[in-house]
Amino acid sequence: MRDLFDGLPEFEPGWVWLVGAGPGDPGLVTLHGINALRQADVVVYDALVDGRILDHAPESAERIYAGKRGGRPSPTQRSISLRLIEMAKAGKRVLRLKGGDPFVFGRGGEEALELTRAGVPFRIVPGVTAGIGGLAYAGIPATHRDTNSSVTFITGHSVTGEVPDNLNWPALATGAPVIVLYMAVKHMARIAQKLIDGGRDPHDPVAFVSNAATDDMTVVESTLAEAGAAAEHVKAPAVIAIGPVVRLRSALDWIGRMEGRQLDPDPLDQAQDEAV
Amino acid sequence: MRDLFDGLPEFEPGWVWLVGAGPGDPGLVTLHGINALRQADVVVYDALVDGRILDHAPESAERIYAGKRGGRPSPTQRSISLRLIEMAKAGKRVLRLKGGDPFVFGRGGEEALELTRAGVPFRIVPGVTAGIGGLAYAGIPATHRDTNSSVTFITGHSVTGEVPDNLNWPALATGAPVIVLYMAVKHMARIAQKLIDGGRDPHDPVAFVSNAATDDMTVVESTLAEAGAAAEHVKAPAVIAIGPVVRLRSALDWIGRMEGRQLDPDPLDQAQDEAV
Repeated sequence: MRDLFDGLPEFEPGWVWLVGAGPGDPGLVTLHGINALRQADVVVYDALVDGRILDHAPESAERIYAGKRGGRPSPTQRSISLRLIEMAKAGKRVLRLKGGDPFVFGRGGEEALELTRAGVPFRIVPGVTAGIGGLAYAGIPATHRDTNSSVTFITGHSVTGEVPDNLNWPALATGAPVIVLYMAVKHMARIAQKLIDGGRDPHDPVAFVSNAATDDMTVVESTLAEAGAAAEHVKAPAVIAIGPVVRLRSALDWIGRMEGRQLDPDPLDQAQDEAV
Repeated sequence: MRDLFDGLPEFEPGWVWLVGAGPGDPGLVTLHGINALRQADVVVYDALVDGRILDHAPESAERIYAGKRGGRPSPTQRSISLRLIEMAKAGKRVLRLKGGDPFVFGRGGEEALELTRAGVPFRIVPGVTAGIGGLAYAGIPATHRDTNSSVTFITGHSVTGEVPDNLNWPALATGAPVIVLYMAVKHMARIAQKLIDGGRDPHDPVAFVSNAATDDMTVVESTLAEAGAAAEHVKAPAVIAIGPVVRLRSALDWIGRMEGRQLDPDPLDQAQDEAV
């Protein structure tokens, strides 16, 4: 076995590292992420980042929370970027820690662009995104050879908090057989209707995976036609899968199996199909 | 700081763990992945998995290569699944190590389904997929607020090695503003034509990221109209990004910057737009 941190980069003063913490489970942080935490002077972290991940940072590191708290609004994106720049220019090793991956609906690109404009050097440390890793904890693969050779990720939440209005819903509805939605619980009824109006089968199976890849994970299964009503009983944050891969959960729910669930060896009814 | 492996699961004999190794850089393996490697009796690994990742396994662990080697064909999917089952039933801790994420065009679902059918217990350990993390090393975010609130991942390679023929190309072409292709270098000319015929702008920027997130990474930029010709000079394996996020590379190429590249503070020409 080799030394874990052998060959990993040194976090130089004056740099910002944008790091993805993964979808929830602290075991899904990467080695680069831990290497970053161990060297950081400041950690600016979002909501949804598990405290056990922050614990990899030295006690002396300053921890700054940049998410929403209580009823108070979260800091604006602009104010977060300015603070990262200010601290880097003061010679600190600044770690910006985000849930999931920084470049998947995480505003990492915006923050990195501000760093470029300010002349602050940075590194990107990708993470496991919730739309893939979170669904895997529910036994739902983003792709599966027998069901889909494409998958589309959509955020249900624009800058203004509304459903993004610049989307081509009919094309999205009939493009990839599997759609994964981020931050879409609140607007699920409208999104489901747009997809159905766009040509998507209302019988398509849907899974809401709340608190994905955490001990509090819950999964609600529904159909696209019923998804708006189902969403009223779903706790945010949730990742939402739409399409035939949801049926694979009955066979691949590995966490459920540990808790005694009997798995279905033929979730896509292929034995029956072949017999016919 | 906490003990790194504190609270992580024990790899029990007779289990198979399907683990994603990430897109290349050995620092992108997760803590769960390392925890798995340290306990494994057998590691069945694919091509594209860095040897430094395998080094986390004890020397006594058996290493079985399951990819293509030289001119010889790779083992069939069926024979790999049967071998995993056989070794698990013999009481071994069997680690199936895949490049990227096991559930993103990685056949993890197929292998897990065979394990369910055989009654072998398993765990899924997600990884960073090349279509996100590999692109990040080229300075290309999969999503960016000003360019796209959706992204589609497509494999350019079906079971038979051909372009998947069950895709709705016009819908995919006009759905998400950003498309990421896996395993598509060989068929790029045909795929680009299908996208253009389906309504995609032939001027759309394209980036081929070969050996993403490795020391041998190379990036070729092109346009959709020229992508077929450009692909002839691109080394597989490559991840291919199509859409406006490719333009962000001129601002976010953080590896290029380390090597002296001057970054563009206004890659989307927004200052100009605002001035007009």
